[in-house]
Amino acid sequence: MNIAVFGAKGRVGSRVVALAKSKNHNVMSIDKGWVENHLDSIDVVVDFSLPSALEDVVGLCLQHHCPLVSGVTGYNAQQLKVLEGLSKQVKVVHKSNFSIGIDMLKKIVSLLADNLQNWDCTIVETHRKGKKDAPSGTAVDLATTVSQNKSFCTVDVHSIRSGDCLGRHEIIFGTSGETITLTHTATSIDIFAKGALLVAESIA
Amino acid sequence: MNIAVFGAKGRVGSRVVALAKSKNHNVMSIDKGWVENHLDSIDVVVDFSLPSALEDVVGLCLQHHCPLVSGVTGYNAQQLKVLEGLSKQVKVVHKSNFSIGIDMLKKIVSLLADNLQNWDCTIVETHRKGKKDAPSGTAVDLATTVSQNKSFCTVDVHSIRSGDCLGRHEIIFGTSGETITLTHTATSIDIFAKGALLVAESIA
Amino acid sequence: MNIAVFGAKGRVGSRVVALAKSKNHNVMSIDKGWVENHLDSIDVVVDFSLPSALEDVVGLCLQHHCPLVSGVTGYNAQQLKVLEGLSKQVKVVHKSNFSIGIDMLKKIVSLLADNLQNWDCTIVETHRKGKKDAPSGTAVDLATTVSQNKSFCTVDVHSIRSGDCLGRHEIIFGTSGETITLTHTATSIDIFAKGALLVAESIA
Amino acid sequence: MNIAVFGAKGRVGSRVVALAKSKNHNVMSIDKGWVENHLDSIDVVVDFSLPSALEDVVGLCLQHHCPLVSGVTGYNAQQLKVLEGLSKQVKVVHKSNFSIGIDMLKKIVSLLADNLQNWDCTIVETHRKGKKDAPSGTAVDLATTVSQNKSFCTVDVHSIRSGDCLGRHEIIFGTSGETITLTHTATSIDIFAKGALLVAESIA
Repeated sequence: MNIAVFGAKGRVGSRVVALAKSKNHNVMSIDKGWVENHLDSIDVVVDFSLPSALEDVVGLCLQHHCPLVSGVTGYNAQQLKVLEGLSKQVKVVHKSNFSIGIDMLKKIVSLLADNLQNWDCTIVETHRKGKKDAPSGTAVDLATTVSQNKSFCTVDVHSIRSGDCLGRHEIIFGTSGETITLTHTATSIDIFAKGALLVAESIA
Repeated sequence: MNIAVFGAKGRVGSRVVALAKSKNHNVMSIDKGWVENHLDSIDVVVDFSLPSALEDVVGLCLQHHCPLVSGVTGYNAQQLKVLEGLSKQVKVVHKSNFSIGIDMLKKIVSLLADNLQNWDCTIVETHRKGKKDAPSGTAVDLATTVSQNKSFCTVDVHSIRSGDCLGRHEIIFGTSGETITLTHTATSIDIFAKGALLVAESIA
Repeated sequence: MNIAVFGAKGRVGSRVVALAKSKNHNVMSIDKGWVENHLDSIDVVVDFSLPSALEDVVGLCLQHHCPLVSGVTGYNAQQLKVLEGLSKQVKVVHKSNFSIGIDMLKKIVSLLADNLQNWDCTIVETHRKGKKDAPSGTAVDLATTVSQNKSFCTVDVHSIRSGDCLGRHEIIFGTSGETITLTHTATSIDIFAKGALLVAESIA
Repeated sequence: MNIAVFGAKGRVGSRVVALAKSKNHNVMSIDKGWVENHLDSIDVVVDFSLPSALEDVVGLCLQHHCPLVSGVTGYNAQQLKVLEGLSKQVKVVHKSNFSIGIDMLKKIVSLLADNLQNWDCTIVETHRKGKKDAPSGTAVDLATTVSQNKSFCTVDVHSIRSGDCLGRHEIIFGTSGETITLTHTATSIDIFAKGALLVAESIA
């Protein structure tokens, strides 16, 4: 398979490149104008760069009429519209988190929000000291999931920046006499690269 | 409603009695031969006593042909058979834990066990220093749920006895790169009494 | 011993009254003008009321020239000065938390802040949904302890309000490659009453 | 500095080699008979191999009359005697864990065990699914620390093997009404290599 990876020098993108190569895919690496191993045809674009690369990403997808797998967070409203426009022409999978565990967590959170009436909900996310945006895209997604299912509920979201934590999401449901806490902890960045590549392989 | 409560002087049973009275039910309290407020007709029997009271409990249910709500743990195989026999004549709800949170936890655990292939599973339950039986009935139930869904999995169960903890159940699903932990904490014994009484009211 | 308890109908104050009586002390209960069991001489005043009662509390201490044990939080700067003035005439013990565990936690936090250079520190405190002030007095004390010892450190404090949590304080020290978390959980309000009464007995 | 590293191909040993080289030390790597970059003089020996290498390790230390920094666990009584004998001729630092956080944890645990009378203590350690020995050397050390200080206390130790956890140690002190939990989490194996190298540099 021929894969173009945007953000190929970044934290997650570089793992996507390494993992894709180890699975014998042809990889074209792109990062802020820098390109390695130019490919004439592309089967799928994987994007772990920044919102500012959106134009280039969309251009490449349209040129090759190939699907996009994106893990970029922080898009503004206009950029989200561009992405939506693209999705009418090619397949687009855009997620804040590609780990299997977070996928399951979203299902569970939705189930609990549907069933736990008159409980309250708090989300605590922890990431490495240097992480700039807060709350994390995943925390926002989880809070949205709870709010959609449980209209009477305001969800407090707390962002902790400590050490070199790779990502910990805690959802606390409380009521009189009992508490349920769901915790997802990432211990390797590879789970995000692995999950994104699985999606790329399935939709290409 | 007329309710007979076995184990009426016990930790949970005494709360059932208090709660039922506050909801204007007529309560006949029974504890090791001691009886308070004899009632001529019984709509439902609630049992938070010990396995040794089984004969009396079954006798009263049959005499009034009324349902049984039982939170008694520690029955042997023969006693479980007696209970099963009773369930062919009257409605029987027998659970190790009547809290809403633990009910939800069981559903979630089943969902995860169905979906998380090649993950491992560990259960840690914590109760007050004096609690005699280990592991807790709820931990056994949760471990059984996982094993049923995930035949390749041995579930380690750890029992911690510390302080005056009312009940904490932690289910840890782990794999390479990520971990999901579900935690239920009971902060008031009332949740067990409340849950049992709700069941009693609905099946009487 | 003769004890006057302000806030005698409150959450903690009512437990101080009950506990003091069970230890055969004579208790004069005071709450918003209401007085029960007037005593002619007072050996110690215990205060779990509100800042607004300060004038009455100080007046009684001066009248009997007796020590004060206070667990009141939320004083303004002027009220703290009044308290400081009182402390020049009678013994005053004013703490945001009288549990033995929190006392130990403060010592540990101080020890860690002295030794963990280039680590970061975050405090998360959880209390019942209804609790009005945030962060808790204990969290403020802990943050101050860390800041005093570790001048280069800003301590983030998060306040979670969930269920009926009696009080949980978590101090997270993080650095590259490792994390230390200290957690204190209160499971009974009696520890605050017990601790305050022990202090009252020792200084009266 | 000239350093000989036993277990140079192992999990921690390989990081010691890489880190030492990055700090411009000369490194002689040794692993099960294999030797790379033979050095004529050795300033310090660092050992993260297995108990079976003890004879070679001791031999090299005596030959160069240089100190030993050892992170090997699982020695039998006789081997510990050999190590004790060596320590009469050269400096020997033998620890189950070289992270700064675990060092602090031991001090804190000792402080708590001295002060928390009539509390109970439980230790829970979590490591990767494949780890063979249980409980971990660090958990044994922590349990010994508590027992030494608090003769009346039996310390329960639980070992969880889950996912690819690098090492998590939890010490729970409980009593009526409150709990203190200390948790150390290792998120990078480098902290063990880093700590051992710091000791090696200071004693060489």
